[in-house]
Amino acid sequence: MKAAIYEGNHVIRITEGTCVQPAKDEVQIAVSYAGICGTDLHLYHGRMDHRVTFPHVMGHEMSGIVRAAGAEVSHVAAGDRVVVMPLISCGECPACRAGHEHICQRLKFIGIETPGAFQSCWTVPAKTVLKIPDSLSLKLGALIEPLAVACHDVRIGDVKKGENAVILGGGPIGTLIALVAKANGANVLVSEINPYRIELLSKLGIATVNPKERDVAEYVEELTGGAGCDVVFEVTSSSAGARLMTQLPRTRGRIVVVGIFSDPPPVDLHRFFWRELKLLGARVYEKEDFERAIVLAASGDLPLEGLISDVYPLERLQDGFRQMESGAGVMKILLDCAGHAEEGSRASV
Amino acid sequence: MKAAIYEGNHVIRITEGTCVQPAKDEVQIAVSYAGICGTDLHLYHGRMDHRVTFPHVMGHEMSGIVRAAGAEVSHVAAGDRVVVMPLISCGECPACRAGHEHICQRLKFIGIETPGAFQSCWTVPAKTVLKIPDSLSLKLGALIEPLAVACHDVRIGDVKKGENAVILGGGPIGTLIALVAKANGANVLVSEINPYRIELLSKLGIATVNPKERDVAEYVEELTGGAGCDVVFEVTSSSAGARLMTQLPRTRGRIVVVGIFSDPPPVDLHRFFWRELKLLGARVYEKEDFERAIVLAASGDLPLEGLISDVYPLERLQDGFRQMESGAGVMKILLDCAGHAEEGSRASV
Ligand SMILES: [Zn+2]
Ligand SMILES: [Zn+2]
Ligand SMILES: [Zn+2]
Ligand SMILES: [Zn+2]
Repeated sequence: MKAAIYEGNHVIRITEGTCVQPAKDEVQIAVSYAGICGTDLHLYHGRMDHRVTFPHVMGHEMSGIVRAAGAEVSHVAAGDRVVVMPLISCGECPACRAGHEHICQRLKFIGIETPGAFQSCWTVPAKTVLKIPDSLSLKLGALIEPLAVACHDVRIGDVKKGENAVILGGGPIGTLIALVAKANGANVLVSEINPYRIELLSKLGIATVNPKERDVAEYVEELTGGAGCDVVFEVTSSSAGARLMTQLPRTRGRIVVVGIFSDPPPVDLHRFFWRELKLLGARVYEKEDFERAIVLAASGDLPLEGLISDVYPLERLQDGFRQMESGAGVMKILLDCAGHAEEGSRASV
Repeated sequence: MKAAIYEGNHVIRITEGTCVQPAKDEVQIAVSYAGICGTDLHLYHGRMDHRVTFPHVMGHEMSGIVRAAGAEVSHVAAGDRVVVMPLISCGECPACRAGHEHICQRLKFIGIETPGAFQSCWTVPAKTVLKIPDSLSLKLGALIEPLAVACHDVRIGDVKKGENAVILGGGPIGTLIALVAKANGANVLVSEINPYRIELLSKLGIATVNPKERDVAEYVEELTGGAGCDVVFEVTSSSAGARLMTQLPRTRGRIVVVGIFSDPPPVDLHRFFWRELKLLGARVYEKEDFERAIVLAASGDLPLEGLISDVYPLERLQDGFRQMESGAGVMKILLDCAGHAEEGSRASV
């Protein structure tokens, strides 16, 4: 088997290794495709080394085929097409006891605290493995994890039919939020400055506004007859986004914080008072979000293919990072981890 | 009749005048007691002159007795003991049409945009007038407006029996929030630095913590077995409060923003993401909050008398402001607007 090993700041090495045998409550998966996430790029830049044990394998967005299941595993078997929900909660902390396992106070994220999916053969706890239907291709299967993030965000934002939703930031997560909000029946508008993304969003049928060209607050007020929008998703993690997010919602409107802010930005708390706004933090997903993501993706109703910019062989992970660093012309890059020549059969792809 | 006229920055003049005759949809009230609010002090300091028409009468916390009601008024009559909910909404803006009249986009606040209660005879729109029961004294009646603020804040915060609530700031509103949260069955803790207020809160049976003496986040974590509290009320309008408010709640805990921030403080949005926190803005009150405040105050279950620091004759409004400016030794100051000598009968007080 092959693995992409992260050895520290900007260093990736491709190694040949042996598969990890699954314990009784584990599953060994032949990884088909793995998406590169902004979090992986962050890891690659050495920003999360304090959470990592070296040498490390990144990756948490994937699809694959079960190779072997431990003795106690009954819900999946060899040959099953699957995805992984990469969370390991402790089951004992106050958050877990309150039923918030996905934000466990000692949460381990597979691909950060434990080895991830950028390898051809991957062994994970059985309870993180979910089957996907035959109608869902393995390529789109690799989008289930970020789509589950979007399903969670939209659920936290309680987006209803006919509502006006504004998404700040049209990267992969912002775009998926727009698609899921649309699937809920909302009118969506994405604020984005990158020309490639603006064009791609248009192709996906999503309305956009460029804050470099228009006053977004004025535009949203115009669009909503002076009321403001029902819900805003902040996905830029920028001060500009934190400033804009409070200007857009109607009285009692909602703001969902999706972006990960490294420093506390100024936030207009007066506006929260004045309009009785709600701010809602959203992190990863719960099982029901993963399940909805699978159903939505398998339905074929979302133009998910359009988000895949490139598919590289696993060996070219570093090229993928470089393309993401350049910023232009990228939405989602997938890695082909199965390696046609090596694994032989990918008939089900 | 007597009125306290605000003539601009720090200038109050007491005048003798004539009562305003009520129009067909108005009510003329003999004001009994009027509370001095932080907002009045803010007005007195000239900070809200842009919202005021001079010469201006301040005041919006009051109790009184109806002297005369307009021809179309049927729900109150001369002799009724009443309070006023000092909001005038437009009925036409998107907020009003959405049923959020209390945060109308063109809201007028009686006592700011229109003449207030610091006078012995006051004429207001009939629909702002609510009766109070005989079991409620007119002195406590003057606390109904701030108590309604607290009822609204606690309702927005959805405080439930057995929950842990932390209130940042033990001024009149923070203290009333603590009392209402307790009435809902919550365990309350007030963070306050003023020694007079700390002592007063203790007398009212409310637990306190002094952030100058203890690390509040550590203390709350200890008190809640490492979980964090269920709900935080930010009533300090300070950067310190904005920093502390995100450190205290449990996963999926709530923060209610009550304080009025003039500048946007840094807010730890990462913590919202990490613990899936909710931030809820709360402004003034709705009718049901006023009604609950009347029921709660009339029940006699809350130690509201303890909040009244002093009762001054209307003529001494300026002394009241000076005492509030000094900071020490003040919770709520009431003005006696009826003037025993002048009005003769205050048997019902
Ligand atoms: Zn990801
Ligand atoms: Zn846990
Ligand atoms: Zn007030
Ligand atoms: Zn209105």
